[in-house]
Amino acid sequence: MSKMSTPLADLFLQTCAQIHPPSADAYASARLRLDTLTKPLGSLGRLEDIAAQWASIRGTDALLPVRKAVYVFAADHGITAEKVSAYPREVTHQMVLNFLAGGAAINVLARHHGADLHVVDAGVDADLSELRGLIHRKVARSTRNMLHEPAMTESELYSALAVGIELAKHAAAVGYNLLAVGEMGIGNTTSATAITCAITGASVEQATGRGTGLDQAAHTHKVEVIKAILSRHFPRLPHADPLQVLRRVGGLEIAAMAGMMLGAASHRIAILCDGFISTAAAALAISIAPDVRGYLIAGHQSAEPGHHLLLERFELSALLSLDMRLGEGTGAVLAMSIVEPAIALYTGMATFASAGVSEVSE
Amino acid sequence: MSKMSTPLADLFLQTCAQIHPPSADAYASARLRLDTLTKPLGSLGRLEDIAAQWASIRGTDALLPVRKAVYVFAADHGITAEKVSAYPREVTHQMVLNFLAGGAAINVLARHHGADLHVVDAGVDADLSELRGLIHRKVARSTRNMLHEPAMTESELYSALAVGIELAKHAAAVGYNLLAVGEMGIGNTTSATAITCAITGASVEQATGRGTGLDQAAHTHKVEVIKAILSRHFPRLPHADPLQVLRRVGGLEIAAMAGMMLGAASHRIAILCDGFISTAAAALAISIAPDVRGYLIAGHQSAEPGHHLLLERFELSALLSLDMRLGEGTGAVLAMSIVEPAIALYTGMATFASAGVSEVSE
Repeated sequence: MSKMSTPLADLFLQTCAQIHPPSADAYASARLRLDTLTKPLGSLGRLEDIAAQWASIRGTDALLPVRKAVYVFAADHGITAEKVSAYPREVTHQMVLNFLAGGAAINVLARHHGADLHVVDAGVDADLSELRGLIHRKVARSTRNMLHEPAMTESELYSALAVGIELAKHAAAVGYNLLAVGEMGIGNTTSATAITCAITGASVEQATGRGTGLDQAAHTHKVEVIKAILSRHFPRLPHADPLQVLRRVGGLEIAAMAGMMLGAASHRIAILCDGFISTAAAALAISIAPDVRGYLIAGHQSAEPGHHLLLERFELSALLSLDMRLGEGTGAVLAMSIVEPAIALYTGMATFASAGVSEVSE
Repeated sequence: MSKMSTPLADLFLQTCAQIHPPSADAYASARLRLDTLTKPLGSLGRLEDIAAQWASIRGTDALLPVRKAVYVFAADHGITAEKVSAYPREVTHQMVLNFLAGGAAINVLARHHGADLHVVDAGVDADLSELRGLIHRKVARSTRNMLHEPAMTESELYSALAVGIELAKHAAAVGYNLLAVGEMGIGNTTSATAITCAITGASVEQATGRGTGLDQAAHTHKVEVIKAILSRHFPRLPHADPLQVLRRVGGLEIAAMAGMMLGAASHRIAILCDGFISTAAAALAISIAPDVRGYLIAGHQSAEPGHHLLLERFELSALLSLDMRLGEGTGAVLAMSIVEPAIALYTGMATFASAGVSEVSE
């Protein structure tokens, strides 16, 4: 894509330039310490990997405290005009109200895990300007219908990326070091599927799931719509330019999540991905800046087939696999309940020497 | 097995007679309520299954409060004379001291999750009678060497089962409603593997893993030892009498865990299984009293191949799969971090009607 020079395009480029890999030294040092703890070598499995990754992101073996927040980005999608979702578009707006009232699944999980919840309007098709407790960053009232034109203009793309970049900067200033991202956007599995096919080259049939409750006929229709979208925008797949993919077939909440991942990585903050949609954002962020990968933790494996494809392609292995397919950041916040004990074990266990326990016989 | 009539054998039989399945009505009613919550139908996946199972165990849709404890049963194994473990036998005793000092993985996880930790001496080969904070229920100083004779006498078997049955009764009296079980016993993967082969008929090669750190030669030796044990005790496999299997190739901590599962089910208390060893106990408990199954939740999928075989055979699906192979109840307690949010979602989410959110378009 031609690179615009505007303040927001510049912010994006500067952010990308500030992303460096997590500390390899801190990682190696954490691995050594894990091997001294009173347990058989490696017997805590993925929990050891997470503790070591966390040390590498922190750049030190002082792993505490953990300061958690979840950001839920809401936006509408022009493609809902093509009837690709089981739910009416108004549900995006209604669910934002439910988030603010505290009744959605993500509210319950954020409270349960002691994570601060921030709800962001990145592009809901309703006037929410009077709502309290909402972070107002509306880029547009929904994307455009990507069956007929790119989902975003270049200006909208950089604005949406900046939403996440700026919130990540704010999160760093507040002191959060573990962010979960989630989304709400009726129609956004269609966008995530198009992104998946565009960047991996997978077939639409392979990547398309039932979203949040489609029957067989509606599923067949969704496949046809996504095929038409892809052939409209990309003569050949896979497509090599992630910004182009995001602008043409992405969503405002997806761009904002990708921006938050880039921003978080630039501030050395760990990010938990949620399900299919946020992983599509992660796939774009990694494609834009490969060093983002070291800051990402895949929270859960959703039931959507496209999610499997993305995790496999980017060699991410989800912590949880519970057949969830809700979004909102629910899987990411639930995965905090694996990340935190992993850190607690690293910092709280006795060593063989301190506990007087024998090691493996030679 | 010939049924002895002794007070402890009678306790066992009475406990089994008091086990009834969880409430099907409460289960159905919980499923109906789950479908009214502000989320696509079924989109919380396994969390919905857990909430419904929890309702069925409670027998009501009043799901709170959750009162948690973990019981760790420690015992030694006569079979360690055959060098089947990478660690010396003294580690069982040393780890009991580590549990009491608060430095083991299970201590950290129990603290992190707010679960009470109880450590039980069911048969450690050391005089622990002066230790404070330990539950003293030593049946014998280790099992016998099952390569040459049954691991337990009938009297020892019923004593070890009674350890768990009586602790479950006490747990019910205290008000716990979610128990995790774990174990510490050098050599006990050999016992669990022999149990697995005896009750499923799987081959020893298929069921034998690396325990907590065996190399290839030691693994081959372990396979040979288990084959010799099985041919010594069971002319034909699978063997139909679970009590006989437990007595001949089990462990005192395994019998105590099986007793606790039977006792917990008789008091309508939910039980979280840990890894391979506790699942071997669960397999025996289900074989003894099939209605135990409704009270069991498989906490995690360990890296031991025998564990896969048991979960598959008894149609249990683990909540977590994190390549852990530690025991101590660590996977079971970690799984509390899935069970509790599942219950919180059930009790804390808004309904479509209360939140004014539209349901699926027709």
